[in-house]
Amino acid sequence: MSTLFTKIINGEIPCYKIAEDADFFAFLDINPNAKGHTLCIPKIEVDKILDMEEEHFLGLMAFSRKVGKAIGEVIACKRVGITVIGLEVPHAHVHLIPLNTMEDAKFQHKVTCTTEEFETIAASIRANIR
Amino acid sequence: MSTLFTKIINGEIPCYKIAEDADFFAFLDINPNAKGHTLCIPKIEVDKILDMEEEHFLGLMAFSRKVGKAIGEVIACKRVGITVIGLEVPHAHVHLIPLNTMEDAKFQHKVTCTTEEFETIAASIRANIR
Repeated sequence: MSTLFTKIINGEIPCYKIAEDADFFAFLDINPNAKGHTLCIPKIEVDKILDMEEEHFLGLMAFSRKVGKAIGEVIACKRVGITVIGLEVPHAHVHLIPLNTMEDAKFQHKVTCTTEEFETIAASIRANIR
Repeated sequence: MSTLFTKIINGEIPCYKIAEDADFFAFLDINPNAKGHTLCIPKIEVDKILDMEEEHFLGLMAFSRKVGKAIGEVIACKRVGITVIGLEVPHAHVHLIPLNTMEDAKFQHKVTCTTEEFETIAASIRANIR
């Protein structure tokens, strides 16, 4: 059965898309720690990120770096954090989280966004990816 | 002034060393979220990880992947998490954290280790780096 994230890649579940290339896909987390919180994933389903072959893993990290730099340019934050946990969805994903305090990194205080806010944030990040 | 981590690299502050190559260094976090919690850093001082040049950033990630795989082989855990926050020490560092629950990823419940435990853990991780 496809993971939730594969359904997002395939368009079976809608998302606020940020970026896509042949191997990787990025979209806004809809239960964000902070506004602009984004997930970067490989298109191929792999559960544990450290099980990815080195080249594939580094491809995901290079993709995440580009997206993260764009987030840092458009979201007011001290820096963009990178977190891989993976205890919930069995499809490797890199969280890119705009950080202002340690609380933003802890996955316990969530923020709400309207559809319009998600769309505006996604468009502004997309416009800054280089 | 040198960062705390540069002093560790230079041996001015002792550490439980895990791995070192020309560009990167890994050692146990002495205030760990979980036993085996390790930090991987570039030898050159850079504050924000996303400010690293792509090649340097990917080198750090490849180094962290090798160390993380060794941690996963010797520490009992569901998987090894990867976290970059960086709000405290202005020298980019990748946390590799053995995860059994979400709590292990949150930097709020810390575990204590004796010197002997740190030494044993460091030696067992070192012995499994490939």
